Amino acid sequence: MTAIHPLDLATKLERLGPARYAARTSGDYANFSGPFGGFTAAVLLRAVLEDERRIGTPVALTVNYCAAIAEGAFEIVAREVRTGKSTQHWTVELRQGDTVAAIASVVCGQRRAVWSHHPAEPPHMPPPEQVPVFTNFKPGGWTSRYEMRFAKGAPDWNPRDERDIRSAHSVLWMRDVPARPLDYISLACMSDAFVIRAFMARGKFVPVGTVTLTTFFHGNEEAMSAQGAAPLLCTADAHLFADGFADQTAHLWGQDGRLLATSTQIVWYKE
Amino acid sequence: MTAIHPLDLATKLERLGPARYAARTSGDYANFSGPFGGFTAAVLLRAVLEDERRIGTPVALTVNYCAAIAEGAFEIVAREVRTGKSTQHWTVELRQGDTVAAIASVVCGQRRAVWSHHPAEPPHMPPPEQVPVFTNFKPGGWTSRYEMRFAKGAPDWNPRDERDIRSAHSVLWMRDVPARPLDYISLACMSDAFVIRAFMARGKFVPVGTVTLTTFFHGNEEAMSAQGAAPLLCTADAHLFADGFADQTAHLWGQDGRLLATSTQIVWYKE
Repeated sequence: MTAIHPLDLATKLERLGPARYAARTSGDYANFSGPFGGFTAAVLLRAVLEDERRIGTPVALTVNYCAAIAEGAFEIVAREVRTGKSTQHWTVELRQGDTVAAIASVVCGQRRAVWSHHPAEPPHMPPPEQVPVFTNFKPGGWTSRYEMRFAKGAPDWNPRDERDIRSAHSVLWMRDVPARPLDYISLACMSDAFVIRAFMARGKFVPVGTVTLTTFFHGNEEAMSAQGAAPLLCTADAHLFADGFADQTAHLWGQDGRLLATSTQIVWYKE
Repeated sequence: MTAIHPLDLATKLERLGPARYAARTSGDYANFSGPFGGFTAAVLLRAVLEDERRIGTPVALTVNYCAAIAEGAFEIVAREVRTGKSTQHWTVELRQGDTVAAIASVVCGQRRAVWSHHPAEPPHMPPPEQVPVFTNFKPGGWTSRYEMRFAKGAPDWNPRDERDIRSAHSVLWMRDVPARPLDYISLACMSDAFVIRAFMARGKFVPVGTVTLTTFFHGNEEAMSAQGAAPLLCTADAHLFADGFADQTAHLWGQDGRLLATSTQIVWYKE
């Protein structure tokens, strides 16, 4: 018997009716308060992937985090907005009581073997086994669900002078813990699995929250299968932190330098 | 009397009821068929900006282009999904008859004078007056509404060998024609005003369409006013073209190297 992966347990949907599901938050993917944003992205994407009307594979996912999600039960309602010849558009809402806690749009696309071209190149990086596993996360919650090996920009939680602002740029290998063959669900989750860049720049925690996350999926099903459970080469960075809102970008590269996902988000920070 | 700018004429909304508007496509912002995607982004954003319930300023805009928009009238319906202390979430639909032709999410944020930090730097670029205006667009439609001065990666429509694949990277100055003080509406529109990267790489036109566009606004109202009608320093690029879907990224920089917007999109291409 194969054990069910924590990500699949955590994002399990119970069908309540057409395009309406019940689900629960999971301690395995918990953050300081409520679930980690990647979990929310993954569970909302699953509602589209499991819908029998779905055509094609995910191309883009935008999640807007509208309100804190309390631990416990929630409902998901999916709506097929429009299905065309090449693309299909969905919106998906996560509700707790009367509150819309998150709202997502998902675009699926009919990928076809046409002209392709891959000019982008991954950064140079030693192989995973030559980069030590980062062990300085507080145990428990979502950070225990990822193995991260930083070649550059590992988190440094040691107190430092507040004028000592450092680079927000990280380069790392990342994979699920336990290992899990890559699919769109895990890639959606992983696209948010980067330490908040303000923590990296400042070396201290301040109240923050992801406001919106957009992830593009660049691989077809063959590219996803080819990746298997191997670590992804990831980069994360920020352009600016301005007036309480910062951006955050991520690139997730697979085997043979294949770009599998790019992601951008806006993070609210209090001070 | 000050003449009304074509962008303001084109995105004019007639209020039909609470959060419900009538508008029309405009020849000034027309593309090969239907309006240029930047127009759609701008007119959907305007529906939020003009809503009396709006708090804060735009932080993020995602537009999903679901169906071709026919020339003529359309309706916009805005929905306030959730208003919190720091952010406000909206969805906005563009309808023609029974078809949802586009659906957008808009996040507004309460910007505050807190810790800020701007690590990103614009590329080096000669001043606008030293870079010639690009004059090789077919006259009419949306390209006539922008003045572009390419320092790198100007479009080259001369037929070339199909194995001659070139860089998708462009660096240019861009401003509205006629000149117009920058605001969130014009910035939303401009964030889609980059020639489709597949045309740049291949030097030929193929059927394409933007599927989804996400634009982040990084400036507060003071930063927007400070920009005035001066040209923006813009870069555009693509990571990959794969199986009929390509990505496209853009950075729009204002005075004194201030990043005003970043944008990512997915473009469907036929062949």
